[in-house]
This record gives sequence, structure tokens and C-alpha cells, in this order.
Amino acid sequence: MQPDERFMRLALSLARRGLGNTWPNPAVGCVLVKGGVIVGRGWTQPGGRPHAERRALAQAGAAARGATAYVTLEPCSHYGKTSPCSLALIEAGVARVVSAQTDPDPRVAGRGHAMLRAAGIAVTEGTSEPEARALQSGFLSRIEHGRPWLALKLATSFDGRIALSNGQSQWITSAQARAHVHALRAEFDAVMVGGETARADDPLLTVRNFTPVQQPVRVVAASRLDLPRARLAGSLDQAPLWLAHGPQAPEQACAYWQGRGANLFQVPLAEGGMDPHALLQALGAAGLTRVFCEGGGRFAAALMRAGLVDELIGFTAGMVLGGDGRAAIGPMGIAQLAGAPRYRLVSQREIGGDVLHRWRRD
Amino acid sequence: MQPDERFMRLALSLARRGLGNTWPNPAVGCVLVKGGVIVGRGWTQPGGRPHAERRALAQAGAAARGATAYVTLEPCSHYGKTSPCSLALIEAGVARVVSAQTDPDPRVAGRGHAMLRAAGIAVTEGTSEPEARALQSGFLSRIEHGRPWLALKLATSFDGRIALSNGQSQWITSAQARAHVHALRAEFDAVMVGGETARADDPLLTVRNFTPVQQPVRVVAASRLDLPRARLAGSLDQAPLWLAHGPQAPEQACAYWQGRGANLFQVPLAEGGMDPHALLQALGAAGLTRVFCEGGGRFAAALMRAGLVDELIGFTAGMVLGGDGRAAIGPMGIAQLAGAPRYRLVSQREIGGDVLHRWRRD
Repeated sequence: MQPDERFMRLALSLARRGLGNTWPNPAVGCVLVKGGVIVGRGWTQPGGRPHAERRALAQAGAAARGATAYVTLEPCSHYGKTSPCSLALIEAGVARVVSAQTDPDPRVAGRGHAMLRAAGIAVTEGTSEPEARALQSGFLSRIEHGRPWLALKLATSFDGRIALSNGQSQWITSAQARAHVHALRAEFDAVMVGGETARADDPLLTVRNFTPVQQPVRVVAASRLDLPRARLAGSLDQAPLWLAHGPQAPEQACAYWQGRGANLFQVPLAEGGMDPHALLQALGAAGLTRVFCEGGGRFAAALMRAGLVDELIGFTAGMVLGGDGRAAIGPMGIAQLAGAPRYRLVSQREIGGDVLHRWRRD
Repeated sequence: MQPDERFMRLALSLARRGLGNTWPNPAVGCVLVKGGVIVGRGWTQPGGRPHAERRALAQAGAAARGATAYVTLEPCSHYGKTSPCSLALIEAGVARVVSAQTDPDPRVAGRGHAMLRAAGIAVTEGTSEPEARALQSGFLSRIEHGRPWLALKLATSFDGRIALSNGQSQWITSAQARAHVHALRAEFDAVMVGGETARADDPLLTVRNFTPVQQPVRVVAASRLDLPRARLAGSLDQAPLWLAHGPQAPEQACAYWQGRGANLFQVPLAEGGMDPHALLQALGAAGLTRVFCEGGGRFAAALMRAGLVDELIGFTAGMVLGGDGRAAIGPMGIAQLAGAPRYRLVSQREIGGDVLHRWRRD
């Protein structure tokens, strides 16, 4: 590996710390290197500010002069709440900038790199770009498609079942696998379930077992807002709750949830329920970049059919439930195998005696 | 690792070469070591003879005198087609025998070790016993339970489906995964499917892509013997075909298949089809020690419900077929999660972009 790639890899690992906490901003990492020595490290802070470059420059102080800055995304060039990071890098006297990718945000879109070059700074673009794009897939999805990156998680038996026919599902996967789900939730901006799951499980949907930097938003998609009120409504102080509903949701239910502090989204209907495209667009418009969907089967099938699922995260346990158990994903009406959605394996490993496998569409 | 365990591991890897080819005999490995140098290696030959010890002794010749023999199973003590291996080891002047486990065959059952000790040979028992038991699970199952070890293989989509609702299933997993299935078949004494799969796919069930030491027996369980005749009947010269049927199978069908050279087994009926216990006992009585079942869903569920599946082999592909696709395992009528069969993860890895995961009950 070349030194540029090595330092970029470090910047990417710093960027990863921001996942789930920086929306609607991207989770960026920055490393400042001078004479082969790291003089500053930074990553986007919770809420999206300060930016990674600011943190790294603050840490480096005077040592930033003549250093090389490794950034996982083009430094910003626009005046927002603060002056642009490109300007900060110029003012600090950085000699060279190595950038993983151009920022597709139309307010930047190459202007950051141009500003740096105009100030006499050597700029190398595209170092470790595939890795950077994968890491910033949520931010990119929102900019490019107006919707968040969507991961679908399934925890199933060996034969792909999420519950017995009577609904019993606690527990199919191991305690360690379930703890890992909480760690995964914390890497997303929001955790989402359909109304059926909310009604069946009345889930908290919060990150537990450890204290996350911030709790992900909880999104429940229930066209009629006919949701259990015990745990969801009783936990508004723990994490935000966003409820997506159809036009036919009773006013009384809307008033109840708004009164408890939930954020309501009205989404138009499509065949069989809420329009999944409109739902995801609404979540994108509200700033979400990474959404972690945990089912249920019918909601997952609707998202799948709409082509909105970017990533699959499977936990497979060594238990067999049989074909009368509940299917992980509902009916999809696929007529030909060539028409079935396909994903590429990213990683697989053992966790607490179960298999964790992750797949992406690309 | 101690030297004894190191050489035993080698003997186990030699033993593995015999899997699928030695039934009804166990697949045994033997290594002869003298002064830290390997002077002989052997494994049970196709058909079960010569035994591993004979091969290793023949290779070592005079060098066997004073050597240590590592054997994955107690050397035999009974006079069968040839004189016992324990005697051969004594006559060759072996100084020490390290054995992984006692042979549970009642004709041996400790007499081999006793015969060696009586001749003044030092015997160490139980080295790498868990590994040896796992490797010889087929032989042990037949001796201890009268039936072969049964592995169930499923190649499914991410959501546990083996086909679309219209039956289309070619192909869900990758070419590399499918080639690996042929390698797996060759490690078993027999490949087995239910009548439904045979009728739907008219499968050859042979090992292809490479030439195995011997073709596994093909077992089809179809209570009425109403099987397609094109490929199964046209391939009797390629591999043996054993047909298990119920008492109600028409005489004409029995006569047809016997005329083509198939081996017929009549199995009593139980609720919903052939009695799976009786089926497995019949296969054990016929000498099979390792059976590889490839479905279909209903047959797999019957074997599962009967508690006869010892091993699960899953291939999971990055394709989503939806809940209207065909379930990998049929209905099992499980009322409580605590009553669901559980398996322990043995290994998981990527193969051709799919995940291969193996589980055992123990």
C-alpha cells in the first residue's frame, strides 16, 4: 500500500466514528501528516459540526504549516454557519491535500478542490475513492437520489424464518448477535419498522446495552397510525419518534402522537399501503442519510419491490422453524429469477454462534 | 500443539480422503513415525479395504520396526477377509500406537488396543478424539444408532427460498457454489432426495465436474414410485440407484425399476408418508454411513421433525425471492421456540459470492 492510501485508510476509519451522528452532513475524516508524522486527526462531530478538517487543524496548531491533509471528502467551499474548510486549510498553510472524492453537494462540487489549487496547494483527488464512496453511501444517496441509504436487517432461523406461526420470536439469534444489532443501530441515523411489527412487538427501537453518541431517530411507518402506545409513546424522552402515516390516519391519532412530541409525516398511498418511494423521499427531505430497517416481512417486501433496499444485513441462526413459520420477507410476486433483486456479498463472519452476512447492491 | 496431536491431525487429514468411498467400513487414516520422520502413510481404500494400517505398513516396510503408529480409530482385532490390523502392527514390530478412539464395533470394542498392549506395545488412547469422532460420525452413527449420519443441504436466497412460486430455481447460487455441491456429494456414501424433487427436477444426482473415486449411491424416497424415467432410469450405468417406496407402490412400477437395475426398499408408512425412521434404518442396514439429503422441502421437514438431521449445510445467495417463493423446509408445526431443532455453527465462508455455512447437532 502506498503512503497516501495508508493515511487515507486512517482518515476513513476516523470518518466511520461519525456514522449515524452527523446527518444531514456527511461523516468525514481528516488526518494531517508532516514529515511522515501524524500531527492532527479529526472527524465530523455529532450534529455535523465542527467539520473533520477543523478538528484536525485545531489539534495540529502551528504544525499544520507545510503538512499534507488527507480528507475523505472534498473540503467545503461555501460559507454556511462558519467559513469554508478549504479556506481554513489555506490559512493554516497546508502544503498538499489528498482527497478521496469530490463532494457531490452542488454548493461544493469541485469548488473546494479548485479553491485549494488556486491558493497554490497541491491537490491529489480520488485516493481510495471506492472505500470512501462506500462509507459515505448515505450522504451520497441523499444528494444523488434525494433519499437515505436503506439497509434491511433480518435475523432468521437457518430456513429463513423470523418467528413461529404463533408469532413467537424471542429468541432465534444469540445474545451476542442481538447486542451487535444495537451497535449497528448506532451507526445509522434512524431505525425503521413497519406498522405490523410495531403493533406486534411494541418495540422501543432505541440503542441499548451501551450509550451511543446519540440515539437514532425511530421511524414507524403505519398508514392508519394504529400503534400501541405503552412503550413507543412512553419513550419520547429517550429518542426522537417519527411517524409516517397515510392520508386516512384518524385526526385523533395524529393529535395524540403530536401531543406526545412525535414528528408526523403524511405520505401518499400506493397499491397496498404507503408509497415507499414517497416515504423515503420524505425521510431524505427531513435530513436522514442512513436508515436501518428491521422489518416486518410485509414492509420489507414493499421496500424491496420498490427497489429501495441498498444493503442487506443477515443474521442466520442454527435453528430450524419450518415453512409454517413467518417469512422474513413477504410475497414479492417475482415471475422470473432474472427479475429478482441481487446483492453482492461484502462480508461474513461468526457472531455468538450465528452467521452475520452483509450484502450491498452495486 | 504436542507432537502426538500434530501427527494425529495428519492421520485425520488422510482419513478424510476415504469419506464416501469406504462404506460400510470407517474411513481411517494411519501415519507411521520413526525418529520424528514419517515412514508410512495410509488411508482406507475404496470399498473399505485394504485398511489404513496395511497401507502405511506396506509403505514403511522394514522402517516400521520401532516406529509409532498414529491411527484415527482403534486397529481391528477380528479375523474378517484378512487377519486383524492389530496383528499386522505387532508383526511389523511397531513400538507404540497412538489411537484417537476406541472402535465401537462390538467385534472390536477395545480388543484391538488390548491385543497391542498384550504384545508389549505402548498404547495411548483418545488423542484428538473429538476431531476423530466428528470425522467418523457416519461410521459411529451406523454402529450406535443403526442409521447413517444425515446431512441436509439447502441452497437458498437471502430470504431462505429454494425457488420462485412457479418452481424456477436455476440458478440461485453461483456456479462455484454449485460445483462445490458436487465435491460435497463425493464425500458422502449417498445422495438422497424426496419424490417431489425427483418429479419436479428429474435430477441425475451424480457427481459431475470432476471424477470421484466412486459415485455415491443415489437414493430417492417416493412412496408410490411415480418417478420420471428419462434421466434417473437412463443413468443406471453411471451410479447405483436405490428407491425407497411404500407398501402401496404399484407392482408394475417396482418391476420397471428393478428391471433397470435399481435397488428397491419397501418402507412402512407413517403419518403423511414413509416412516423416516424406518427409511434411515433401512439405509443403515444396507451399509450406508453418510447420506447427503438435497430436499425437497416436504421431505426435509419430515426428516427434521423425526429428529434425523445431524448436519445442516447452507448456501446463501444474495438474491431475494419473497415470501411467495418456495420454502426451503416445509411446515413443521412447532408450537414453542424451545421445541425447535438447534444446531451449532461449525464453519462459514464465502464461495463464489455466496455464503457457505455448516452446522452440526451435538
